[in-house]
Amino acid sequence: MTGKPVLAAAFTLAFVCHAEEGMWTFDNPPSKAIQEKYNFALTPQWLEHVRLSSVRLNDGGSGSFVSPHGLLLTNHHVARGQLQKNSSAARDFIKDGFYARTEAEEMKSPDLEVNVLVSLEDVTARVQDALKNATTPEAAFAARREIIARIGREGQEATKLRSDVVTLYQGGEYWLYRYKRYTDVRLVFAPEEQAAFYGGDPDNFTYPRYDLDMALFRVYENGKPLETAQYLKWNPKGAADGDLVFVSGHPGSTSRLHTLAQLESQRDSSLPSLLKLINSRLDVLGKYSALGAEQSRQASDQVFSLENSRKAILGQLKGLRDEQVMAAKRADEERFKAAVNERPEMRDAYGSAWDDIAAAESKAVTRTKEQYFHGMASTLADLSRQIVEYVAEIKKPDGQRLPGYHDSQLESTRLEMFSPAPIYPEFEIARMTGALALDLAELGPDDPFVKTILEGRTPAAAADTLIKGSRLADPAVRKQLVEGGETAVAASTDSLIVLARRLDPQRREYRKWMEDNVQSVEARAGEKIGKARFAVFGKTTYPDATFTLRLSYGQVKGYPMNGTVAPPETTFYGLYDRAASFNYKGPFALSSRFLENRGKLELRTAFNFVTTNDIIGGNSGSPIISKEGEIVGLVFDGNIESLVGDFVYEPTANRTVAVHTAAMTEALRKLYGAQKLLDELLVGKAGK
Amino acid sequence: MTGKPVLAAAFTLAFVCHAEEGMWTFDNPPSKAIQEKYNFALTPQWLEHVRLSSVRLNDGGSGSFVSPHGLLLTNHHVARGQLQKNSSAARDFIKDGFYARTEAEEMKSPDLEVNVLVSLEDVTARVQDALKNATTPEAAFAARREIIARIGREGQEATKLRSDVVTLYQGGEYWLYRYKRYTDVRLVFAPEEQAAFYGGDPDNFTYPRYDLDMALFRVYENGKPLETAQYLKWNPKGAADGDLVFVSGHPGSTSRLHTLAQLESQRDSSLPSLLKLINSRLDVLGKYSALGAEQSRQASDQVFSLENSRKAILGQLKGLRDEQVMAAKRADEERFKAAVNERPEMRDAYGSAWDDIAAAESKAVTRTKEQYFHGMASTLADLSRQIVEYVAEIKKPDGQRLPGYHDSQLESTRLEMFSPAPIYPEFEIARMTGALALDLAELGPDDPFVKTILEGRTPAAAADTLIKGSRLADPAVRKQLVEGGETAVAASTDSLIVLARRLDPQRREYRKWMEDNVQSVEARAGEKIGKARFAVFGKTTYPDATFTLRLSYGQVKGYPMNGTVAPPETTFYGLYDRAASFNYKGPFALSSRFLENRGKLELRTAFNFVTTNDIIGGNSGSPIISKEGEIVGLVFDGNIESLVGDFVYEPTANRTVAVHTAAMTEALRKLYGAQKLLDELLVGKAGK
Repeated sequence: MTGKPVLAAAFTLAFVCHAEEGMWTFDNPPSKAIQEKYNFALTPQWLEHVRLSSVRLNDGGSGSFVSPHGLLLTNHHVARGQLQKNSSAARDFIKDGFYARTEAEEMKSPDLEVNVLVSLEDVTARVQDALKNATTPEAAFAARREIIARIGREGQEATKLRSDVVTLYQGGEYWLYRYKRYTDVRLVFAPEEQAAFYGGDPDNFTYPRYDLDMALFRVYENGKPLETAQYLKWNPKGAADGDLVFVSGHPGSTSRLHTLAQLESQRDSSLPSLLKLINSRLDVLGKYSALGAEQSRQASDQVFSLENSRKAILGQLKGLRDEQVMAAKRADEERFKAAVNERPEMRDAYGSAWDDIAAAESKAVTRTKEQYFHGMASTLADLSRQIVEYVAEIKKPDGQRLPGYHDSQLESTRLEMFSPAPIYPEFEIARMTGALALDLAELGPDDPFVKTILEGRTPAAAADTLIKGSRLADPAVRKQLVEGGETAVAASTDSLIVLARRLDPQRREYRKWMEDNVQSVEARAGEKIGKARFAVFGKTTYPDATFTLRLSYGQVKGYPMNGTVAPPETTFYGLYDRAASFNYKGPFALSSRFLENRGKLELRTAFNFVTTNDIIGGNSGSPIISKEGEIVGLVFDGNIESLVGDFVYEPTANRTVAVHTAAMTEALRKLYGAQKLLDELLVGKAGK
Repeated sequence: MTGKPVLAAAFTLAFVCHAEEGMWTFDNPPSKAIQEKYNFALTPQWLEHVRLSSVRLNDGGSGSFVSPHGLLLTNHHVARGQLQKNSSAARDFIKDGFYARTEAEEMKSPDLEVNVLVSLEDVTARVQDALKNATTPEAAFAARREIIARIGREGQEATKLRSDVVTLYQGGEYWLYRYKRYTDVRLVFAPEEQAAFYGGDPDNFTYPRYDLDMALFRVYENGKPLETAQYLKWNPKGAADGDLVFVSGHPGSTSRLHTLAQLESQRDSSLPSLLKLINSRLDVLGKYSALGAEQSRQASDQVFSLENSRKAILGQLKGLRDEQVMAAKRADEERFKAAVNERPEMRDAYGSAWDDIAAAESKAVTRTKEQYFHGMASTLADLSRQIVEYVAEIKKPDGQRLPGYHDSQLESTRLEMFSPAPIYPEFEIARMTGALALDLAELGPDDPFVKTILEGRTPAAAADTLIKGSRLADPAVRKQLVEGGETAVAASTDSLIVLARRLDPQRREYRKWMEDNVQSVEARAGEKIGKARFAVFGKTTYPDATFTLRLSYGQVKGYPMNGTVAPPETTFYGLYDRAASFNYKGPFALSSRFLENRGKLELRTAFNFVTTNDIIGGNSGSPIISKEGEIVGLVFDGNIESLVGDFVYEPTANRTVAVHTAAMTEALRKLYGAQKLLDELLVGKAGK
């Protein structure tokens, strides 16, 4: 077996990336392609500055520093969770927006964690070394968990930095990523939702678009605004048609390197189940919202998030059900396998991996229902599960704990568990009732999980008793239990803790079964495929997204759409057009701010724009960066044509959708009276 | 065999129309469906008024009277041909638009004919009676031609009205349509093309749209403006979301009742050939246009028309290549045939029709190349052919003449032949050179048609000699030849007349072969299917479009588009958005009038809008009519989703695209200073 790429020439169609394709790790940027197509040289300095200016938010998005005083730009829809948690019946920051005119008014986020990737270290050899004596998938699985926990723990101990081991190329590589971690993150500015999420669910994932989907936080350190040289200068002119631009952010997850068997079970099993779950949840939330304005406010964030997921999943399913997409995937896999099987030593080492995965997927499908329909849709129930697990797990050696409970992860887990964000009992009851009804419908009354929870009661009666019998809504109670350890948890008579104790063995059984039958097999097979990929093609591609920092490049560019062409950018004119076109109704209504201050705006200002950058969910809030390393836009979406991007990058019409800095500048100045904020952004540009 | 519908219940899917589907003849309007869905009763008075207010233009479009003084509203793109013919190197009415501020300035159209349908008479029995003794398809074909010519001639002699026999339901019915004919039609108003055809070819057949695609003619009678009570009152408020609206116009041609064999040969043979032809013509026109501004002006109308056709054909091909569309068509046909074959007497009478058509199509395909690649792309060559045919045909008994030369058609044919519209020799040479090169490439040098024309010369040399050797550009020369009859034509040494004489036998052979082998067979089989359709389903459907007057109903309604929803209407805001979005470039540039007068416009005025009405090419210029019988919009397009409408009506997204009367009112008043015209339109409304 050789380490050198073989057969690459024969595989140009399959594995040489399309121009602009790829979510590249910072250790392996596509410098050559960029140099060739755009005559631009990525320097180590440029890359480092961009990396250190980029942030990950634990709410599932990305962002960037945009001033020397810790100002952090992300999307409104990434900040949404924190806005919701800070809102109440009396003040609705999602609906009304927020602007802190002074530092004192800046609003603390209950449980937001911000990470900056400060170093990357290849630990593949160390992980592989630890696995070399494992003869079964199960043994390898345990050894892998152990070594990954150890590397993370040692990293953290040595540097005090959050230290995560990241699996890339399905196990072809392992990297230690170290993050500077910030948890004092205060909201500075967010527009009203009607401006940030203009067009609502219909326009979500589409373009042309007119969304001011932005929010500004300020990161504090030791109680003071973070002073930093690592931020992106604000370019108020923004990007123009044809410009080369970069996106630095945290794409969450893709399945581009998955095997056909994995894609097929996504298509036939996981995604349809997930869709059923989401539709059921949305149905429940819709009924709850209909009860009144306050109920609607409480449910709003989850409605937003589930509608977003539903649309994304529908797009993914459309892609997986597209015979052309699948035929291309099938052809790619066949050619890859043929290349492996052609050389006896590769065939012996890796040849079985595809069949192993197919067999594991077949097994997994037998328990798909449990995976999706053993849910309780309750924040309190989730917390009870976490508490019961926490006290048990931390007593074990680090290397044997469940994910989330390793030493290197405990700080983040505790931030989550002890969040002071409000929890609404009636909302909890409504959601849990709906979830239990779905579980019962899908699995029947004799399913052990269903039986344990319902104990013969109706879903509504069970939910009512369980939520009303619990005091976990109080963070102090949760802290007490956690600090009291196993004894306190064992003695607790809190209804949800009691239930979580009874469900714990079932959950562990399911998890263990999945580890032994699916995860361990797929991890081992994935590693083989990862190695085979390097052996056959060399490191000419990028790994699937893993919610870690990636760089993508592309250009501002319209695309063929619905018989005509979509423009590279939109303008404020278009917002007023769309509103009037729908007679100012529903998701197309204008906020009073936009209605009343139209005369102040230069209507031809660029509002949203599209680029060919390759992104995916998790990239929300990523900066769009010019060659000069300035921020020229803010990623907030992909177009509908990009939803197949989970599996394949389609260069003709796949587009990143972003807010233009010109629009943000114009709006902050003329609609929000936020001149002070602009001064900070623009002084930043001058390089204060 | 029974005349009563049978089996209708079993065929609900196939033959009961979708809501809003159908281009209905005025003798059989869908009154019941409209009453049921919209609670609106179509009265005979309403229908008559709408019919007499509707006009057909011989340039291939529709229109309506909109004032008591003969003002006729149609599309800019329908008026385009006349604008082109009145333009010169010195004045370009397409580019600059036109407005006659006084009656004296109104500009005579060279060869525009306007028809108003004044009566309809069912002549099915008379035609069928004339065919009853014909034992072969050929004999039936001759008898049919003879009786149709006779009915037309008698109709015209009796009433002095243009009298056409129209074949409906593929020969299931024959009707005598009598038209009042106007040929003194003067241009009153047309906007600049950049406003009328905003977005150009990219936006053509799409929506959202921002086109002021309107033109106003005035019809004169005896040298004076036509005074008429039959006109549609102008409603400046226009249509609103959800309104019930009607379209009365002249859809050109559809293939919804065609057999699968016919659709397949369209898909596999005719349309691909036509597309190749159009692409070649456009290529030639592009090169000619590149020579200079004047060349570009000369070619502009043909470029417009061919690009329009290309986009329509691409849409049709997409429909025919859509396996779902074809599967539905196949299923419909199978069920229809099964119903026919179930009853022995129907099977004997009609059962063979589908196979007969399939056999004829197979034959036709053998000569498709000649059909499409025996073209010369020259106006002068067309005229030479017409002159040579004319003098021969009119000597024959009326019933035996070629189409276009029957007594009832001669007036219109002569209007065309003697048109004073300018003909540009260099343009003729360029087009003919391109066409002959294509013919040569497709059929080879030994093809008799190619051989006769080229005589061993290159296409360029032949075209140069032929055009330069002809004086047919002068209408007086054409008139002389026609009036000199066969003797004058036989004696002519005009290069194109000489050539046309030599080509005449070849053309007659081809035409005869097509008549004997294809048209006669399909006409006879079509009649059988038409009769079978009535026998099986009753007269519950509408006939395919035949460029005769039809009524469609529908409502103003957005539709699902590209992941979101298209609005029911657009506004002037959207025009300014689209222009700025493309940086005011190319087809998205704004005319200086729109750029400079933006401040005068109420930007939220409805501009274009969409309705569910079922239309097709030929409907361009049709009025959109309210329940009150007022004009609320002007049809100018179908959306991209409607292009499959040639074969099937798809209710979800098939939309008619129209100019809103509010936009026309706003533009006439504020951009064009045409208050006088508006006064006439609005006084009309008051019922002067």
